[in-house]
Amino acid sequence: MTTAICPGTFDPITCGHLDVIKRAYGFFDRFIVAVATNPIKVPLFNLQERVQLLKKATNGLANVEVSAFNTLLVDFATSVGAGAIVKGLRAISDFEYEFQMAQINQAMDENIETFFVMASAEYTFISSSAVREVASYGGSIKGLVPQSVEKELEEMFKQKFGRLEKGAV
Amino acid sequence: MTTAICPGTFDPITCGHLDVIKRAYGFFDRFIVAVATNPIKVPLFNLQERVQLLKKATNGLANVEVSAFNTLLVDFATSVGAGAIVKGLRAISDFEYEFQMAQINQAMDENIETFFVMASAEYTFISSSAVREVASYGGSIKGLVPQSVEKELEEMFKQKFGRLEKGAV
Amino acid sequence: MTTAICPGTFDPITCGHLDVIKRAYGFFDRFIVAVATNPIKVPLFNLQERVQLLKKATNGLANVEVSAFNTLLVDFATSVGAGAIVKGLRAISDFEYEFQMAQINQAMDENIETFFVMASAEYTFISSSAVREVASYGGSIKGLVPQSVEKELEEMFKQKFGRLEKGAV
Amino acid sequence: MTTAICPGTFDPITCGHLDVIKRAYGFFDRFIVAVATNPIKVPLFNLQERVQLLKKATNGLANVEVSAFNTLLVDFATSVGAGAIVKGLRAISDFEYEFQMAQINQAMDENIETFFVMASAEYTFISSSAVREVASYGGSIKGLVPQSVEKELEEMFKQKFGRLEKGAV
Amino acid sequence: MTTAICPGTFDPITCGHLDVIKRAYGFFDRFIVAVATNPIKVPLFNLQERVQLLKKATNGLANVEVSAFNTLLVDFATSVGAGAIVKGLRAISDFEYEFQMAQINQAMDENIETFFVMASAEYTFISSSAVREVASYGGSIKGLVPQSVEKELEEMFKQKFGRLEKGAV
Amino acid sequence: MTTAICPGTFDPITCGHLDVIKRAYGFFDRFIVAVATNPIKVPLFNLQERVQLLKKATNGLANVEVSAFNTLLVDFATSVGAGAIVKGLRAISDFEYEFQMAQINQAMDENIETFFVMASAEYTFISSSAVREVASYGGSIKGLVPQSVEKELEEMFKQKFGRLEKGAV
Repeated sequence: MTTAICPGTFDPITCGHLDVIKRAYGFFDRFIVAVATNPIKVPLFNLQERVQLLKKATNGLANVEVSAFNTLLVDFATSVGAGAIVKGLRAISDFEYEFQMAQINQAMDENIETFFVMASAEYTFISSSAVREVASYGGSIKGLVPQSVEKELEEMFKQKFGRLEKGAV
Repeated sequence: MTTAICPGTFDPITCGHLDVIKRAYGFFDRFIVAVATNPIKVPLFNLQERVQLLKKATNGLANVEVSAFNTLLVDFATSVGAGAIVKGLRAISDFEYEFQMAQINQAMDENIETFFVMASAEYTFISSSAVREVASYGGSIKGLVPQSVEKELEEMFKQKFGRLEKGAV
Repeated sequence: MTTAICPGTFDPITCGHLDVIKRAYGFFDRFIVAVATNPIKVPLFNLQERVQLLKKATNGLANVEVSAFNTLLVDFATSVGAGAIVKGLRAISDFEYEFQMAQINQAMDENIETFFVMASAEYTFISSSAVREVASYGGSIKGLVPQSVEKELEEMFKQKFGRLEKGAV
Repeated sequence: MTTAICPGTFDPITCGHLDVIKRAYGFFDRFIVAVATNPIKVPLFNLQERVQLLKKATNGLANVEVSAFNTLLVDFATSVGAGAIVKGLRAISDFEYEFQMAQINQAMDENIETFFVMASAEYTFISSSAVREVASYGGSIKGLVPQSVEKELEEMFKQKFGRLEKGAV
Repeated sequence: MTTAICPGTFDPITCGHLDVIKRAYGFFDRFIVAVATNPIKVPLFNLQERVQLLKKATNGLANVEVSAFNTLLVDFATSVGAGAIVKGLRAISDFEYEFQMAQINQAMDENIETFFVMASAEYTFISSSAVREVASYGGSIKGLVPQSVEKELEEMFKQKFGRLEKGAV
Repeated sequence: MTTAICPGTFDPITCGHLDVIKRAYGFFDRFIVAVATNPIKVPLFNLQERVQLLKKATNGLANVEVSAFNTLLVDFATSVGAGAIVKGLRAISDFEYEFQMAQINQAMDENIETFFVMASAEYTFISSSAVREVASYGGSIKGLVPQSVEKELEEMFKQKFGRLEKGAV
């Protein structure tokens, strides 16, 4: 049985993330979307919120689980018996960072392989940070995040950014 | 009548910014240099200072106005009746970020088009952050910022970084 | 009156080319799609074929003309009174080449400015060479080239690649 | 049963190619190394030579087959029942081209997914063209090509480049 | 007599840094590894710690000195009589930033030249930030930092990150 | 005594080439500009012409010699006792190719180090191929090639491209 983990911060999940998950999960017997708890950068959404949104968005995808981890990626992979890491690639800057991480992970555990999936062209411009930026100005996130969590996310953003006063400078 | 906006943080204006403005403004009937108020990253110069420097540097350029905005870029464009966004490109990293923003803006309002102008070769190495770094060490900003605001900026930098003690480590 | 030229080899026109033309032509009084006659690289389609396809694909777009040139780009721009060059950008490799050409053109004639338009995300993967490659294997070019010239191009490709025998290696 | 194809020109196979194959083949039930017959660029080694070298180099890897194809990649994938394409990534230029091809292949057949594997750091600098260049000057290809085919390839290169006279210019 | 400085934050020194130093120092009569005191980004290791680790790691390399500076790089170069700056290049993102800095330094003092050395392929994936990230999760830094300071660095990391509680999220 | 070689095709020499030579040669006791005889790509100017132009352009630079080679670069370096290779970097595409070549050369001879110098900002857009393209259309090469060989090169270009008929398409 092959197990893969698909790690990320998912702050929050975007259409691009879901696209990558949908393309890859069918090739593995078990597919764990793994939410990283970055000890340095404080995310906008807490771990529970990010996991909850992912669970809702991946609901119905057989074999897909959502989990969280606060260890080295390769340690988490080993702990769940995963031999593969799956990541999405959108842009050159992704490529450089992911290339570095893949090499480091391979240096630390050569039994774990990283597979990359290119995001669909229509989603290449979407990132969690772009979604957060649009939402911080009260812009519509329709088409940027999975439809199943759009309403919920709009509410969450409203609570987080609602204080921001808009108007003439 | 065609109206264009040229958005940026301009913290502070550089020779590269002025170069882009000078190349593009003549192609539009109205050209608004639009200073962004980033709600997340705190700029070194406040909004008033950045606007004032831009006004001085673009003084004499007919049809060029300086304004500020604290909304989504496309919303600001719509509010002033602009059909075009003009941006400068210097480097690959600019390209990736600007590509993403252009796609997002197009997704939010397909009636607004983004035009890119390549900065002149001699200005490709100048960025606001580089100017700030040079100034923070007391280096000369001559040739990095428009001549018309050089003296004024030097004074402003002296006030901001003057406390920094220099000497042997 | 502002005149722009949109130069390229257009061997053949793609959906990406048409997308760039449609986004930009409205900002100029006169918009000339300029087909380059590359003295070094022999195109698959001859000049007449490429012009003819462009004329059909841009039919109905007011102010858009199709022309050919076999001189330096800046000389052609001057000869038609154009102050602007419009180009599409899709990828990093485009960016580097276009940056170089824009600098050279500016060095040769500083009165002509180059504006870049980012191709729509869904067209970033389309290039003339990719269209030719797909067609050379008898693949469908539907969705890769403008609908108005799809049939005509399929016929032209059949004539050019029809001899190619397919089958087991 | 999952089947993957790993396409390329393999002109000739390098240590980088073998590295990618070895990392990926274990994740699939059937893994077909697919040698492309490029109708445009004439390879240095003919199809039979390239297939023969690949077979020798992958000898002993269970489930790995070597095959050739002269059709569209997605058509070949369908004909062998493959749902996955596996490619290696070494550099930014690879990334851009492969991104384009992955998008085109997806547009032509959305049931076939492309997975990318990053080549090991020590092999990132090796390409078939670099191997050919080194060999054309009589340089050693040791460490650049799989050990199992090193001798054989040296002989083949000697035959192809042997005529080249070396000496003072 | 030629003097070169090799500037960086070295937070902490990695195998990649040492590789660059070892390749370049022999070409100069005097080679000063210069530790920058970044006034903006707070490093994990203080200046004294970073200098001490560098001294230990470069111990035995004749002509190599370790120093610190808190001025403009070109000013420091002038103060020690250095005509050359030596930097390592690993990735595209390095390239862009270093290109910009080299141009700025040249604009400020045209008598000082920047030379770049490409890091060895096996070290391209190593950066100080990656080392810090691995260590923050308690991962092994063996092979990422020079052997001579491995033990010492492990102790230092333990003190800095020891508080971090690991376990189930 | 340190010896460096500065290899290239120099087809023909540009202001960018001369800029790189002038920045680097002073750091070495002997500096050999080494003209490569590419066995595959036929240059526009023959070896004798390229060497002659380089000699004229570097006339007056003490310690600079011009030579040609038709072997592996590392073999040529060894034959002249050079421990350093000096190359110019202009763009990302340069970077990737040069990175690959530096790694290969290092794999073949670890005693030879490659140093890179960034071309001056104003020359980043100049390449031999761009100069050839401009000249092929009868454009002025003033400012693109060293002043000392401008006249001579104009004559040479006239002879090579003079047959090309210009006019309406």
